[in-house]
Amino acid sequence: MIKIGIIGAGRIGKVHLQSITYRVKNAQVKAVADPFMNEETERFVRGMGVTEVYKDYRQILADPEIDAVLVCSSTDTHAAISIEAIQAGKHVFCEKPVDHALDKIKAVEEALTAHPGCKFQVGFNRRFDHNFAAVRKAYDEGRIGEAHVLKITSRDPEPPNPAYIKVSGGMFLDMTIHDFDMACFLTNSDVEEIYVQSAVLVDPAIGEQGDVDTAIITMKMTNGALAVIDNSRRAAYGYDQRAELFGSKGMVATANDTLSSAVISDANGVTGEKPLFFFLERYMESFSEEMRQFVDACENDGEVPVGIHAGMQAVKIGLAAKKSVEEHRPVKMAEL
Amino acid sequence: MIKIGIIGAGRIGKVHLQSITYRVKNAQVKAVADPFMNEETERFVRGMGVTEVYKDYRQILADPEIDAVLVCSSTDTHAAISIEAIQAGKHVFCEKPVDHALDKIKAVEEALTAHPGCKFQVGFNRRFDHNFAAVRKAYDEGRIGEAHVLKITSRDPEPPNPAYIKVSGGMFLDMTIHDFDMACFLTNSDVEEIYVQSAVLVDPAIGEQGDVDTAIITMKMTNGALAVIDNSRRAAYGYDQRAELFGSKGMVATANDTLSSAVISDANGVTGEKPLFFFLERYMESFSEEMRQFVDACENDGEVPVGIHAGMQAVKIGLAAKKSVEEHRPVKMAEL
Amino acid sequence: MIKIGIIGAGRIGKVHLQSITYRVKNAQVKAVADPFMNEETERFVRGMGVTEVYKDYRQILADPEIDAVLVCSSTDTHAAISIEAIQAGKHVFCEKPVDHALDKIKAVEEALTAHPGCKFQVGFNRRFDHNFAAVRKAYDEGRIGEAHVLKITSRDPEPPNPAYIKVSGGMFLDMTIHDFDMACFLTNSDVEEIYVQSAVLVDPAIGEQGDVDTAIITMKMTNGALAVIDNSRRAAYGYDQRAELFGSKGMVATANDTLSSAVISDANGVTGEKPLFFFLERYMESFSEEMRQFVDACENDGEVPVGIHAGMQAVKIGLAAKKSVEEHRPVKMAEL
Amino acid sequence: MIKIGIIGAGRIGKVHLQSITYRVKNAQVKAVADPFMNEETERFVRGMGVTEVYKDYRQILADPEIDAVLVCSSTDTHAAISIEAIQAGKHVFCEKPVDHALDKIKAVEEALTAHPGCKFQVGFNRRFDHNFAAVRKAYDEGRIGEAHVLKITSRDPEPPNPAYIKVSGGMFLDMTIHDFDMACFLTNSDVEEIYVQSAVLVDPAIGEQGDVDTAIITMKMTNGALAVIDNSRRAAYGYDQRAELFGSKGMVATANDTLSSAVISDANGVTGEKPLFFFLERYMESFSEEMRQFVDACENDGEVPVGIHAGMQAVKIGLAAKKSVEEHRPVKMAEL
Repeated sequence: MIKIGIIGAGRIGKVHLQSITYRVKNAQVKAVADPFMNEETERFVRGMGVTEVYKDYRQILADPEIDAVLVCSSTDTHAAISIEAIQAGKHVFCEKPVDHALDKIKAVEEALTAHPGCKFQVGFNRRFDHNFAAVRKAYDEGRIGEAHVLKITSRDPEPPNPAYIKVSGGMFLDMTIHDFDMACFLTNSDVEEIYVQSAVLVDPAIGEQGDVDTAIITMKMTNGALAVIDNSRRAAYGYDQRAELFGSKGMVATANDTLSSAVISDANGVTGEKPLFFFLERYMESFSEEMRQFVDACENDGEVPVGIHAGMQAVKIGLAAKKSVEEHRPVKMAEL
Repeated sequence: MIKIGIIGAGRIGKVHLQSITYRVKNAQVKAVADPFMNEETERFVRGMGVTEVYKDYRQILADPEIDAVLVCSSTDTHAAISIEAIQAGKHVFCEKPVDHALDKIKAVEEALTAHPGCKFQVGFNRRFDHNFAAVRKAYDEGRIGEAHVLKITSRDPEPPNPAYIKVSGGMFLDMTIHDFDMACFLTNSDVEEIYVQSAVLVDPAIGEQGDVDTAIITMKMTNGALAVIDNSRRAAYGYDQRAELFGSKGMVATANDTLSSAVISDANGVTGEKPLFFFLERYMESFSEEMRQFVDACENDGEVPVGIHAGMQAVKIGLAAKKSVEEHRPVKMAEL
Repeated sequence: MIKIGIIGAGRIGKVHLQSITYRVKNAQVKAVADPFMNEETERFVRGMGVTEVYKDYRQILADPEIDAVLVCSSTDTHAAISIEAIQAGKHVFCEKPVDHALDKIKAVEEALTAHPGCKFQVGFNRRFDHNFAAVRKAYDEGRIGEAHVLKITSRDPEPPNPAYIKVSGGMFLDMTIHDFDMACFLTNSDVEEIYVQSAVLVDPAIGEQGDVDTAIITMKMTNGALAVIDNSRRAAYGYDQRAELFGSKGMVATANDTLSSAVISDANGVTGEKPLFFFLERYMESFSEEMRQFVDACENDGEVPVGIHAGMQAVKIGLAAKKSVEEHRPVKMAEL
Repeated sequence: MIKIGIIGAGRIGKVHLQSITYRVKNAQVKAVADPFMNEETERFVRGMGVTEVYKDYRQILADPEIDAVLVCSSTDTHAAISIEAIQAGKHVFCEKPVDHALDKIKAVEEALTAHPGCKFQVGFNRRFDHNFAAVRKAYDEGRIGEAHVLKITSRDPEPPNPAYIKVSGGMFLDMTIHDFDMACFLTNSDVEEIYVQSAVLVDPAIGEQGDVDTAIITMKMTNGALAVIDNSRRAAYGYDQRAELFGSKGMVATANDTLSSAVISDANGVTGEKPLFFFLERYMESFSEEMRQFVDACENDGEVPVGIHAGMQAVKIGLAAKKSVEEHRPVKMAEL
């Protein structure tokens, strides 16, 4: 039984708390800390059987009974808290992105090198989605041969509010970062070069924040495959999350998930349901699965499925994407 | 080169004329006869390169150059004209149904026995539809093993006008007759027993004509398979023509055809096109294919793909269906 | 908070225990009883936080703290235990079928009449399946107009072992009973008349037990709609569970659920996944949803979604189906 | 009735001859010319009712009865013959590409300016494909709002032989040129800038010819939309031809065409057919439709659906694509 402390009781912290309580075996959340802990949150947390509720996360790090912590605090604190936790001898599950600055991620890497027993997992939950996992499985099994072209479609149902855009690091580090990690996961490879063609087509207010809302991103992977991601901040029909991997022996492709398979045929045509609304609906089960695998790695001294290398790569690709937009040219990863 | 005469220049006669002219090799329509031949029809017919245009079909039968005739006249004349044509030494393609009365079909059978060299094909064009042909092919290739359950859905986009219903012989002999033949074709078997549950749900005027407009028809086939047909005279979304054959090793199923594969995703859902409107749209290519195979059988002394046995069976099943409705019980084919 | 006792700790009892523990709010399983309670089961049960573990279900009925019981014992004890529980003042969730004998179900009905405050729900979980619920919702919302033809396909991935067939009451009371209830649910109607065409095509051993393994079942519903169920005990491609409701304004149809939407295109064709293996995989979420609604009805004095009327109907239809096979004729429900 | 002369009796010339003979009203092929005219071709041509068969295309241009010519000769002669035909007062249908050199296309443009009555159509037949036409129709009808992202997938079933690659002008001018035209057609816009990421992944022999076989091509359109084309010279599952247009109000997407809709479910999964083999199978009907519209424009003095502007654009984009590969940077169309 792994005892867990959760640092940060915002939306994603609560998701993990529920997953571990109801859907993950051999794990138990003992403590939750949040600097803004209020009565309502405390009631929710205690309702899940958590006995220790703190404002200061250091109380979690000081508890010798706690084996692992989940770092679900605000992004700018991920790296520092992770390093403290590593040094306190805890296993760490860190939400994505580890940080927006490469030197801070490097500092986490160094802490891990100094503590080789530490299990450190990054929260790229979509790798555990049933559809995307099936794509990778088909590739691993050799069913499509060598990877030639990967296509990822990733469109949100609605843009974030402009205030959030400012602090989010922009579309590439906030939204596309998941797709960058997915590209690496599905091709089992890193990125060598990237080129971005982007635009502001959804909302001029986004452009006024210096960000973009629509993009086509081309990448050359280190294994020779080509990859393309197309992003939009607003799809009128909802959350569009698909992937297609084309190779020397065939192609594997996925569709969106829906609430039901019901299709209505009438005078208007043959109509199925829209995709599940947004990431909490579409990826809920993947949040449980990433926790199961993290707990399993902690308990059985196994390898974590998404380590610091992946956490570093995704941010690096995001920064290269920004550079490509600024300089309007293909950018090699080696330039960063 | 097979020289053909067409008897009856109504809708289906014109369809065959166009097929042969534009889509069938090694055949040529030399003559067309219709008792109601008018100027417009004659212009159409001559526009297709037909040189002989008659009111009296006997002029076609008397032409020694003509190898084969298509009997596309009104249903009540099919059998008599077929017999005359057989006796005149012509090959015969007879539209369905051969007749509504079994003794008249039997008379055609006898004429054929007396003229063994005659190629006689019945116009069950749907056997040549790309989808249904693919079902039979999968079955013949052993891909679904032994046939266990056949399901046919057959729904029209709109009911015929009440006046037509009276002369049509009722839904089972007019509309379902195609599905009865399809059941025999897809299971490669005859019917042993039939039970019909029917209703008037589309239009009370149909009930007032003594007919039904909705039915579920269960059959036991002579090879042991079970089969079910569901019919409606009106599907709000259009012409619904599907089949599903389930067997010991698997299932083969078909969907409707549409004008294009375009699917629109928007705030209302994910919407594809309605089925092609009606039989002329859906089955146009099948009319050409049945002609190609008829011409091929005539030219190369081959076997016709749909003979008098099939023509007899379908009508017999239709009559058994009517009997099942009247007596509200399962009816064995042997009772007829 | 509803306190629950589970009577019977077999497969389905365990499913409910897990559902309530992990997926149902406002409910808690306090006690579990099973005459064959063994150490392994007790460990499993206590692992879910259950404090009371008994061999004798009467200890559950005697506990004044327990609000509701789940009757998950063997079928032949359902009715008797239900009546005892009703008389002990408990709400009752009874697994299907309530009994195979109508007079025993009638006895339960009478107990309920005598205890009008009792919430009594029957375990037809498939009504809560996301796909089938979407069909009923479309119908309720008027999107397909009046119901004309309902089609249910229900095929198991493999037949039960012959020993089970003997005690199960035969295919109609064991397997099809779910489809009978589904037919009533989806058309929001009862059955008026039924006709069965059945066969032994899967395994002669089933026939030797006096049962059938393949059937097409036609029903006339009391609201005038026609319905057809096709059953097989073995589909080579797995658990096939689909429905299609056709009405005056359109059709709503559902497909099977799969583990993922991944489709592989290669030299063999374009291949998607097989359906989820069997009822535990396909219907797991529906088991949780029926519990949520039962708990909700108990807690808020609401109406249960599946009452004793539905429990009676499904068995009655099953018995009528057997009679139709024996007498080879359509059977009116009024005959029973 | 339009009288037509066909210049070039290779594969595509024969396709047009058959289309006009069998599927296009109000048009007739009077003459066919080919410098390599042989007995077999002449027999085929005469079998279609063509009375004049020449080696020298000038005999066609000299025939005052001939209204229009189809230029189906080798690519390097397209422009010169087109100009001669324009000057001879013929309407011209010119196969794609008009030429690989922009100055030669410009010369055709000038000839057209000098002969304003001439109908000049370029053979981008895919615009007339039922699926792609449905995408454009949905866009024109405002069903997807403003165009944001266009995605075209275009993969051949097998690469051409290396000898052909040399003379073809490379993948962008030979294969992708259709996709460039499609991008302009579907967004109803021209290209402003293009970037190509390409590779040799299918066959090293293609690389040895200085060509590529796999590419992701990003474009910015003049109306602000972004577009991406992904190409491969070899898809193991066959000819993959899809498009997806995403806009402010929704998305329209198309799938591949297949021989039938039959889907087989068995122990291996749920398998549908591969796409139609190659362009002659997939686009046959579009060849007829482009002829119908060309004939219609000639007969009724209408506008041709694909004029010299489109012919020029597609080649220009192809040359820009080559430049992008050579210089490894985004290239503006204005640079050419």
